[in-house]
Amino acid sequence: MNAGQPRPYELLYWPSIQGRGELIRLVLEEAGAPYVDVARLPESEGGGVAAILRVLKGRTGAAPFAPPILRHGDLLLWQTPNILAWLAPRLSLAPTDEGGRLTANALALTLADFLSEIHDVHHPIGVGLYYEEQKAEALRKARCFAAERLPKFLGYFERSLSDNSASNGKYAVGASLSYVDLELFQLMAGLEYAFPRTLATLRPTLPRLGELAARVAARPRIAAYLASPRRIPFNQKGIFRHYPELDQPGDRPG
Amino acid sequence: MNAGQPRPYELLYWPSIQGRGELIRLVLEEAGAPYVDVARLPESEGGGVAAILRVLKGRTGAAPFAPPILRHGDLLLWQTPNILAWLAPRLSLAPTDEGGRLTANALALTLADFLSEIHDVHHPIGVGLYYEEQKAEALRKARCFAAERLPKFLGYFERSLSDNSASNGKYAVGASLSYVDLELFQLMAGLEYAFPRTLATLRPTLPRLGELAARVAARPRIAAYLASPRRIPFNQKGIFRHYPELDQPGDRPG
Repeated sequence: MNAGQPRPYELLYWPSIQGRGELIRLVLEEAGAPYVDVARLPESEGGGVAAILRVLKGRTGAAPFAPPILRHGDLLLWQTPNILAWLAPRLSLAPTDEGGRLTANALALTLADFLSEIHDVHHPIGVGLYYEEQKAEALRKARCFAAERLPKFLGYFERSLSDNSASNGKYAVGASLSYVDLELFQLMAGLEYAFPRTLATLRPTLPRLGELAARVAARPRIAAYLASPRRIPFNQKGIFRHYPELDQPGDRPG
Repeated sequence: MNAGQPRPYELLYWPSIQGRGELIRLVLEEAGAPYVDVARLPESEGGGVAAILRVLKGRTGAAPFAPPILRHGDLLLWQTPNILAWLAPRLSLAPTDEGGRLTANALALTLADFLSEIHDVHHPIGVGLYYEEQKAEALRKARCFAAERLPKFLGYFERSLSDNSASNGKYAVGASLSYVDLELFQLMAGLEYAFPRTLATLRPTLPRLGELAARVAARPRIAAYLASPRRIPFNQKGIFRHYPELDQPGDRPG
């Protein structure tokens, strides 16, 4: 590597989905940081899923549990909130004060919990089973999700924005853009894909989240990324999946 | 407060369960740190669940999503891995090097994910419903859990111990006890309560986890804590619940 050339970050994540890896891609893209999305390279260039499996199975010492994994020099990080809490400050996408950092991490962890719940709507019984094998349970869970969990989490994030007087409600933490805002953009984009009808009923109560998502999407580097082939389209293999039968805002849980 | 007296940490957590708050109690107890378990005080002394609700609802600015919450001076932290990553280094229960800290946090986050899955075995459809209202789904999820998820997570933590050459397999990260080890003790104690039959079938494959749990339980401060009324017994309201019908090691998922 040439002296003076910044060493690229190496992201290892499933090459066919946005998934949790997208939260890291968005930070790297917004910062204009050099990075390699390793598993999207051809296998002949050391990429593919094989590159992930080599790290998961080959390493001695503390091995990652699952992707996303970030490699940088001798450091090997995994778990999305752990990666983000390390990476975002280096790329000026995190608060600079201790209180702000801790709040950002708490919000990122809350969002990680929410993503797991969103995933489990289509997989309430087991990740080893297909959706079609747990569809009856998914239909029932989707009703609880639409009636209780979705409004609870989105209402919480909306209040986090409106209560953040440092940015007059524009950003989640502090006075400027942070990785939490990029995460909230991704959350709203994913929910729009997976649950458009249910989200439409909630949108009037979520003005700041809607504005934030539009503001992030319009940032030049993010807009260029979203229009590029580097942005993997939403599909039926990721966290956010669009099954119309699970997007029924009118139902009540029971 | 007298000068020279360390300011006590204030933990805010549901007073009737171990739950996620127990991971923080164990760190405070092992360190012999001064702390107040606020909600276990009488309401007349500012305690009870009312103390938690005051923090959840009363605060302006970034409000916690849910307990556990840790208060220390002006800092208000929430989300268990966030609290632990801040608290444990102050109490000499975390690695001192950056790589060790990041590995400890990744392991703590993996354990947090596992705890959520353990909870969801008895609540696969929704937290707003009673177990009895989702028992059929829980029975099915329990089979997948026993056959796939439990062996996967426990095998991973066993390997984390055996691969940690710095402690010859005695501790999860680095050469000495850290908060991750206290978490693994709590995990094994909870699984022993909730899934004794299933755990018994796995124990022969988990020698280091078994030894670690025994070693932690025998530490003087932890032993004194476990024997004290400060340790809330396991019960049917927390993460770990013992429903014999969900503890069926022989079943295969289907």
